[in-house]
This record gives sequence, structure tokens and C-alpha cells, in this order.
Amino acid sequence: MSVPSANPADLDRQDPASEVSARAEAFRNWGRWGDDDVLGTLNFIDESKRLEAAALVRSGRVISLAQAFDTNGPQKGWRRRTNPVHTMTDTGTDAERGNQGFPHGIGGADDVIAMPLQCSTQWDGLGHIFDRGMAWNGRRAGDVVTSDGDLVTGIEHAASVIVSRGVLLDVGRHLRPETCELDDGHPITVADLEATAAAHGVTIGRGDIVLVRTGQYARTRRDGWNDYAGGPAPGLSLTTAGWLHSTEIAAIATDTWGFEVRPNEFDVPAFQPLHQVVIPNIGLTIGEMWNLDELAEACAQRDSWDFLLSAAPLPITGAVGSPINPVAIL
Amino acid sequence: MSVPSANPADLDRQDPASEVSARAEAFRNWGRWGDDDVLGTLNFIDESKRLEAAALVRSGRVISLAQAFDTNGPQKGWRRRTNPVHTMTDTGTDAERGNQGFPHGIGGADDVIAMPLQCSTQWDGLGHIFDRGMAWNGRRAGDVVTSDGDLVTGIEHAASVIVSRGVLLDVGRHLRPETCELDDGHPITVADLEATAAAHGVTIGRGDIVLVRTGQYARTRRDGWNDYAGGPAPGLSLTTAGWLHSTEIAAIATDTWGFEVRPNEFDVPAFQPLHQVVIPNIGLTIGEMWNLDELAEACAQRDSWDFLLSAAPLPITGAVGSPINPVAIL
Amino acid sequence: MSVPSANPADLDRQDPASEVSARAEAFRNWGRWGDDDVLGTLNFIDESKRLEAAALVRSGRVISLAQAFDTNGPQKGWRRRTNPVHTMTDTGTDAERGNQGFPHGIGGADDVIAMPLQCSTQWDGLGHIFDRGMAWNGRRAGDVVTSDGDLVTGIEHAASVIVSRGVLLDVGRHLRPETCELDDGHPITVADLEATAAAHGVTIGRGDIVLVRTGQYARTRRDGWNDYAGGPAPGLSLTTAGWLHSTEIAAIATDTWGFEVRPNEFDVPAFQPLHQVVIPNIGLTIGEMWNLDELAEACAQRDSWDFLLSAAPLPITGAVGSPINPVAIL
Amino acid sequence: MSVPSANPADLDRQDPASEVSARAEAFRNWGRWGDDDVLGTLNFIDESKRLEAAALVRSGRVISLAQAFDTNGPQKGWRRRTNPVHTMTDTGTDAERGNQGFPHGIGGADDVIAMPLQCSTQWDGLGHIFDRGMAWNGRRAGDVVTSDGDLVTGIEHAASVIVSRGVLLDVGRHLRPETCELDDGHPITVADLEATAAAHGVTIGRGDIVLVRTGQYARTRRDGWNDYAGGPAPGLSLTTAGWLHSTEIAAIATDTWGFEVRPNEFDVPAFQPLHQVVIPNIGLTIGEMWNLDELAEACAQRDSWDFLLSAAPLPITGAVGSPINPVAIL
Repeated sequence: MSVPSANPADLDRQDPASEVSARAEAFRNWGRWGDDDVLGTLNFIDESKRLEAAALVRSGRVISLAQAFDTNGPQKGWRRRTNPVHTMTDTGTDAERGNQGFPHGIGGADDVIAMPLQCSTQWDGLGHIFDRGMAWNGRRAGDVVTSDGDLVTGIEHAASVIVSRGVLLDVGRHLRPETCELDDGHPITVADLEATAAAHGVTIGRGDIVLVRTGQYARTRRDGWNDYAGGPAPGLSLTTAGWLHSTEIAAIATDTWGFEVRPNEFDVPAFQPLHQVVIPNIGLTIGEMWNLDELAEACAQRDSWDFLLSAAPLPITGAVGSPINPVAIL
Repeated sequence: MSVPSANPADLDRQDPASEVSARAEAFRNWGRWGDDDVLGTLNFIDESKRLEAAALVRSGRVISLAQAFDTNGPQKGWRRRTNPVHTMTDTGTDAERGNQGFPHGIGGADDVIAMPLQCSTQWDGLGHIFDRGMAWNGRRAGDVVTSDGDLVTGIEHAASVIVSRGVLLDVGRHLRPETCELDDGHPITVADLEATAAAHGVTIGRGDIVLVRTGQYARTRRDGWNDYAGGPAPGLSLTTAGWLHSTEIAAIATDTWGFEVRPNEFDVPAFQPLHQVVIPNIGLTIGEMWNLDELAEACAQRDSWDFLLSAAPLPITGAVGSPINPVAIL
Repeated sequence: MSVPSANPADLDRQDPASEVSARAEAFRNWGRWGDDDVLGTLNFIDESKRLEAAALVRSGRVISLAQAFDTNGPQKGWRRRTNPVHTMTDTGTDAERGNQGFPHGIGGADDVIAMPLQCSTQWDGLGHIFDRGMAWNGRRAGDVVTSDGDLVTGIEHAASVIVSRGVLLDVGRHLRPETCELDDGHPITVADLEATAAAHGVTIGRGDIVLVRTGQYARTRRDGWNDYAGGPAPGLSLTTAGWLHSTEIAAIATDTWGFEVRPNEFDVPAFQPLHQVVIPNIGLTIGEMWNLDELAEACAQRDSWDFLLSAAPLPITGAVGSPINPVAIL
Repeated sequence: MSVPSANPADLDRQDPASEVSARAEAFRNWGRWGDDDVLGTLNFIDESKRLEAAALVRSGRVISLAQAFDTNGPQKGWRRRTNPVHTMTDTGTDAERGNQGFPHGIGGADDVIAMPLQCSTQWDGLGHIFDRGMAWNGRRAGDVVTSDGDLVTGIEHAASVIVSRGVLLDVGRHLRPETCELDDGHPITVADLEATAAAHGVTIGRGDIVLVRTGQYARTRRDGWNDYAGGPAPGLSLTTAGWLHSTEIAAIATDTWGFEVRPNEFDVPAFQPLHQVVIPNIGLTIGEMWNLDELAEACAQRDSWDFLLSAAPLPITGAVGSPINPVAIL
């Protein structure tokens, strides 16, 4: 079996099934960490990697990489993905008016939220995507995620794992220095990733968490959400699957809705083929809808692109994803 | 005006209003960080404090301090506080069966959650509690938190702040070495806190985040939730308000539902008087329902009780609290 | 005090406050049913009215007047009004696969919904709208509806009331016989209502529930939702307030989002002025987003426009509105 | 094949599977209304039945048969069934204080609900229960109810159907005239149903909706919810399956959580065996958690036990059940 090409020009744009399956077979990590594994490539993070990451803290500055969890967000209801609905069960207005019935002048405000776990900045759990009925590590999808949730690889298993060295690859800045924004539909290639890393002077290796900035989120801040949630976007080419595998990175995140390029790179109906390769086969944890703009400015100013990244998910039992507020500690 | 006593025996158990107001006036920080402040004592965290904290990372071990966000949690519906309701909008069972209608063999699972923001491990935002109609920094409660949420001090303002030195005070272990658990109703005093710190060999100062372990959560793991959410509990005495102010700590968290001792220390109706002093008056950010058990074991084994704590809230616009997964990086 | 005009041409389009207050004062029903009243004009329905209505059942046909409660509905998130989010907690796919763990071959499906109470076909409760801080019957708004809900006039009080004679006024059909649809922005006047009633051969009186069909909903079925939820629409003119009062109808409903004409009839900022007159002052229960198309066809075919209407709200404690499935029994 | 016994003493209490399957095969209605049927026994309601029902309206009195949809309800979280969480997105307190930003003195209150569709008074849809992987009319469960909802027999199909003659059988009153309440665990038999009907002077036949009052709900009103949701209860014996089939009733409802007797009538693990027979096999629509107490009083006083029943479900697309407010019109 030949190694699938890392060049988008080599893709057979009529045959997503074959292009996906070739990469699934070539880069599959099933069994690599034992039959019971629930972490996939997060296993690449070890304590020495974290010590290396902690040593990157040089200023004490913290930058949040989360977008706002806001009712005026990008979601438009596709597959019941709404924006968060945040409501108050007690308010200051009621407290001030004396409506609450509490003693000695205490008043309170409380709140409730209803939201898709993938409505804003998030990690995809390993149970989020399946390949031909199979989930991560070669399990049957119906044995893993039922209507009771992810019974095997729920995001709670990663609760104390995702702290590592983060590396920002500002591909938007490197390829489009005048705007720092890639066009929608731009497929980011292995060559793009490597050129950006070289320009930044960083190397990428086992256990790192790679953050790829396309600049699309900055565009939405200027032009409005438009079709940010699910529409055209710059993003990783299917052909990066081999790089995502061979670098042994622990996780990857982008500032776009869906990590990979959209429209997808086929002339026939296709949907998120890179997800299909990397989540169930490589076992790669993917972050989406991150806000990488302030971090990019900071990294550019100090000309240093790695940092301590702390991005633990909420341990929601059985969840296939989690809202997060990742922080870079510089 | 004399300084309110730090001795619980001095409390007038018939007069919570006076005991609260004396401490509110004595320890109020309004205006300390300007009229527009939205962070309160989180302002005590500065970059040098974070550098100090990052230097505490010696093993690379990460410990999650979150309880499970689980439908079988402690909430019983008081004030509409339910446990999280986590539901799937797509499942592996459907994917495996071919029910989803996606091309080239990709399948997916997606999920939704509805939950009170204070249902499990969380930060209280500064808009969570009011004192006689007033919110943090001297604002009228009805100008701050309406049914649109916290318009001024929403938790989103702390999104890139809460990374600092964490210090664990395992009061349960120090006072009850045989069980490591305080009894419900045990009021933790300034003397208890200081004795524990001395025994641990740690000092506490400006910008620290103090984690107080009572052992009650460990008890629920053994005996069931019972009335963990709102019932009797060990916790801080109202008389610790001065210590919470003078130490200039940035935040404090406990392994109990409500941070302060319950029943509250009065013989007449009272409700969370220490909250009333510390949130709107001191501007102190409080964490509740943390899981400090694994961290306590680790600290005891290495005989070292401080660490890098990363505990950024989700930036939910206008929220008066946030579910979190705080991590200690040792 | 002169009676406010029933002619839209007489409105001072610069002064909504005066036009509202003149009608509020002229048509106010406060105290009419005692100080403790929670039903307003629903009091006009009595048992003899219902006997009259039951006698209208001549064919036994039932027509639902509800729109679909569907994730692909008209809501776009304004003031957190989303479409319903309906999710499954158990599915047939899981049951068929044997994932559920039940004995003797039983399987089940269960579901959950999150929705604004006004997302689709609904009644507005009497606590839904206030006039200068006052609620129905002269109560202070903050004494009635707090963040705990409507403590006084919650929709549950109407649980066994709203069955009466229904009368359909198909104003769209009468004024635009070729399309049966009024244009957006068309203000329906008293003259329009009376001409339609005359054409239909119906009289309207005490205790009736009047259904006004504009045809806008039929248009959305053909052209898409567009701005159905909150955008331009045909609807009742502010000048119908006197008619709504003097007819002593029990309730009124339309096939539009907001019952009254939009844009509202002023050249300065205005918002739902007829609501402000009729809900808190007249005590009129209003229905919105009803589907009147099949009923209109049936009434036209049989040339008979009244029927038994059964439209009880869900008794949600403290709700200021309720989703409903009203049925006409012909 | 012999007809399964209508006598509980004949049940093999060791073998629920056989007892269920015998009745499933004996009473199955698959194909009776064509291959595409989505209504089951609701097809027994025809227009002449409704004319008969309308003629029963003699006083004009309306009685709601719904329990309160209230946060203090019976649900305890089993299978994520919580009580409704009703929250306000706008309040009267805010309106009164001028916090809302609306013009000319209008203010508003709005609300949101999150609830299981079966949390309170409801209809079970035909997709709610499966028998050995099969749904109503012989369809595979996984072809009917996926995580997208009930794609075939969703409750919306019954939106304009469920108006018919209602007949109350107050079995509690008939068997226990002193308390009007059956004991928990009391299995209601065919003999009990027939004796009650005879005592009431009513006959039951095709298209009727039968309401069976056990008195358990009245007990909860006096003693508290306790285990109303899922615990021991009086209810129909599995042996009533033949009667439910042969009477050709359209639907049946009870004042209990689960319609059938609990504990179920077996000495080995069993769960709702009568559901398994009647929903997927007979195609019977079942109502649960109805409030039949006021209706029972009224029927007893007038000594007349039938009435017009209007109980249309909310047309929630794809729902396997619906909250309802059924009304009896006497």
C-alpha cells in the first residue's frame, strides 16, 4: 500500500470514500495504547512534556482563547445547534426590590444555560465522529455512543490531561501578511503548515497541541457571523492527515467552525472527510471555534510561538464534546 | 468602629443583620480598583504572581479539581437547581445503522446540555450575591443583574484572569487526622486556617487562590449525596471575613456546596451571611463544589501544598457563575 | 374625555405615548371582576356561552389550529426566542439494537424539549405585557412577574376556562378575495372587522373568541419564514382597541407573530402599542401564530364561520404564556 | 392458540416474556388501518362519535384534567426525567424599574421552559414503546425513532384527532367507597373495569376514551409526591390487554405515573409489560398523570360519567409524547 499523498492536487475529487479509506488505513492508531484506551493521541502528553511547557512561561500573561458563549453567536439551528440560551432564575432587580424573601438583606442572582456542547469554543471528544460505523480504537459506534451518551470515550476521561505545550501556527499571517486572513475555501496543506512553523522558528513534535490560525474568526468580528457556522472556510486539507499522524501531536485546534477546509475538496457530495480520518482512526482530539487573534498578536510581538496551554474540558459524563475556555500562559 | 471579632464565640446569634453589616463595613473594598472595576480581588493576581506559580510546576502532573457534571448529581431542584440534563442529538447507534444520511461512511454524535451554572464545580461571579440591594463596588443590584444577565460584572470579564498560585489548606486532614473529614456544621475559624497553613508549611498572601478541603465531598463519595446541595456542612465561619480581606487572596474555593458553614451560625433565620459580606463587599470570587481529594493525597505525599492553578471560567456573556474544570499543575 | 378614534387616519403618528394612554384610560377594565381577578375578559365566557358553542358542532370534524412546533420554525433568536429544541433521551435505534437493558424485549423512546413558551402557537398570559409599570387589574408589575414567574396571573389560572364559541373572521379572504392574503403592514381596522363579519353573516359578542385570519401564515408556507417572527405583518390597528373592549369578546387570536400591525402605526420608535392597551388594561387574552388556513377553507366551503373552540393552555405554574394546540370542532 | 386469560391468577409470574408475547400476538392490530397508518386505535374516533360526544355537553362546565406543570413535581431524575424548569427572560420587576429599554411605557415578560415531554400530564405517542425491536404497525424501531425523533408516528399526526366521548371509570370510588383510593400495587382487572362501568351506568365502545381513576393522585395531594413517579401504584393488570383490544376504545388514561400496576405482576425482573403489548401491538394511545379528581366529583354529583373530551397534543414534530391539558366539557 502506498502512502496517501500530501498534495491536494493528487486527490481524486470524484471519490471521497476511497481517499478517506486510504488515509484511515494508512494512519490508523487502533490498539496503539491498548484495547481499553479512551484518550487517543492525548496519550502523547506526558509529564516531561508539561515540564517543558511550564518552562515556557516567561511573562505571566494569560490569554483566553475562547470566543464568547453568547446568544448572538454564529449558530443558526443546523442539526439543532443553537446559540446558548442563558436565563436568570434570580436577578438583582428582584433582590433590590425585596422580592426574594431572604433574611438580613442578602439577595442573589442565579442562572441556567441550555446549549449544544459544540455551540462555541470546544473540544470534539473521541466519540464525536465515526468511520463506517466504527468509533475510536476499533469499537462499534453503537457500543460507544447511545442516547445515554458516550459510554466509553466520554470527554470526562480527558479531565486531567489537556495541559501541554501549545504551538501557534498563524498560517493566515504567514501566507497573507497584508491581511493575516486566508480566504474561505483555502485548503491548508502540509507545506503551508511546515512553512509557517519554519517562519515562526518552532518545531512541532510529540505531545504538542497545535493551534492553527486562519484569520477567519477575525473576519467575522469585522464583517458579522454570516455563515461562520458551517459555511465556506479556510481549513486543513484532507491531505494533512499523514502530517497529523506522523508528528504525534496530541491535539489540534483552529479558529474556524470545522477545522478542515470547506467546501470539502470533492466534486461529489462529501462531508468533513478529514474528521472521518483523524477522530476515529488517529484518535486525534480536535478543537474548533477558538479565538486565536489576541494570542497571535502577542506571539508576533514577542516573536515566540509556543507557550503553556491549559485547556481541560468540563467533565460532563458521556459527552462527545465540551465547551472550554482554553488559556495560553505566556 | 472596632474590628469585628474573628472568634465565633463573639457572634450575637440573635442578630445576623448586625454581624453582617459590621463586617461589610469593616472589610469593604468598594472603589479600591476604580469605579469601573469588574474583577474585585482577582485584581490581586499579577504577572509576577503567575511566574511564581509557574515555577511551582515540578512534576508535570495535572489533577482535575472538578466533580462530575452528571445527571446523578447532588441537586434536588431547590430554586430550580437541577442536575445537568445531557442529551444526544446524534448517536453512534444511528451512525452504525446508517440512519444519518451522511456520505462516504462518516457518522457523527452530537449533544446538548441544559444545566444551572451552579449545578456542579463552579465559580460564583461577582453578580451572584447582593447586600441590601447593592452589588459589588457599590452598584445598585438592579443596575447590574437583570433578566438579561449580569450587564456589568458578568463572568466573561474573568476569562483570562484566573491562573495563579493555588494553596491547598486541608483543614479536614489537619483537624481530624484519623478521618480527614470535618463534621457537618463545623465552623472553620481563622485559627483553623492558620494552624493548617502552619502545619502544611505554607504562607498565604496577595493573589493566591486558597482551596479549603473540609472532607465533606469525600464523605458523599462514600455515603451518597444526601443533602450535600444545601444541607448541613462544614465550612468557613462568618468570622473569617476579616482574614479573607486582610490576606488579600484573589479567590477561595471549597469542596462543599456553599463555602460557608451550614447551618449558619445564628439562632434566628439566616442565609449565607459570609457570602453577603465577601462577594458584594470584598469583591471575592468564590468557588464551590470542588473535588479536592486527589489533590490532597498528592500534596500530602509530596508534603508540598502549593501549585499552579488554572481555573478560567467559560466566558458566558452575563453569567453570574460558571461551570469549571479547575486543574492543579504540580 | 372623548372616546379615542377608531380611524387610523386620526392617530398622531408622532405620539405613541398619548395614543396608547388615551386608549388605556378609555377602555380599562380594572376592578370589573373584583380586586383578585386573574382572568380578565376570559370572565366573559360562561356556561351558557359554552352550551351555545357546543350546539355549533354539526359535522364532528376537528381542525387543529396549531402550527408545527418544529426546530425549523420562524424564530431567529430575538430576545432569546429560539425554535424548540427537541431531543431524544432514548431511541428506537437503541431499542432495536438491544442497548437499553430492559427485560423481556420491551424498549422505549423518550424525549425532552427546551423552548420559549411563545415560540409557536400560543396564548399570551395576562402577565405578558405591562403599561407604565402596571400589570392587569392595576397591580404593580414587580409584584406580579418576578424571576420566579407570574405569581398572580400565571397562565395556570386559565386551565379550565378557554372553551367557547369561536368565530373566524377571514379578513384576508374578504378584503383580498383573489389571494386571500393581506399585505404586510396592512392595518386591520374596525371597519374591516365589521365588514368581514357582515360578509360572513356572523355576529360577535360577549364571551366569543375571535380568530382573525390575515393570510400571512399561508404566505410563509409558500415563500418561507423570512421575517415572520417580528418583521412586517398585517395585523390589528391600534384603533381597534375600542372594538376589542366594547364587543366584550373573551379572547382574540391571529395567524401572525404579533397580533397587531407591523411596522406599528407611528413615525417615531414604537413597539406593540395595542398590546400595551389590551393586555394590562382591558385584560384581553391574545393568541398568536395560529394556523387558520384549513379552518378558513372549511368555513368557506360550508359558509359558516362559528364553531366550538377548545384551546386550554398548559397549566405551567407562573407562565406568562403557553404553547397550545387549539382545536375547532365543527 | 388460546386466548390469553383475563384473570391475573393465571399469569405465570416467572415468565413475563411469554405472557407478553401471547398477548402481543393475540391482540395485534398491525395492518388493520393499512401499512402507512400512524394513528392506531385513534382511528376508531370518527365524526359520528364526536357528534355523540358533543351532545353530552349539558351544563357548559369545563374541567381541566391536567396536573400542574411545576418545578415542584414528582420527577426525581430517573432516565433524565426532571420536573419542568421554567425561567423568565423578561420580568415585571425589570419592566417596573425601567430596565427594558422599550418605548412609550410598554414592558414585557417572557419565558422559556425545559422539560421532558412526559414530566407531567401527557399522551404517550405510538413511538414511545417497542416490542422486541418492533414499533407500531410492524415497523422496525430503528426505522421509526432515531435521535432525530419519531420520523413516522410522531405525535404531530394526532393533532386534530383526539376529541371524542370520554368515559370516566372511577375504580377507586367503586372498589373503595370509603376512601375512593386503591392501594398501591392493586392490579385493576377486567372484572373491576366492567363492574365500575356497570355501577356508573355507562357502556364503553368503539372510539371512546376511557379515563381510569385509581385515586393515587388524590393521595399524593394529601401525603406528598413520594414515589409517584415510578414507584408502587395501582394500575391496570397485564390481563386487561384483551379488554383494551376488544372494546375498540381509542385511548385510555389514568391518574398514575404509568397506567399499569406497579410493581408489575411478575416475580422476576419485569418492566411495564402492558405497555409492551398495547402501544406497539394494539396501537393504543395512553395517557398518564392525569388529574381526575375534580371530574370524579362532578360525575358523582350528577351521576353521569360520560362527556365531551378534548385532548389534542401539541404538534411537536417527531415527539414520542406530548404534554397536554385535557379538558372535559360537561
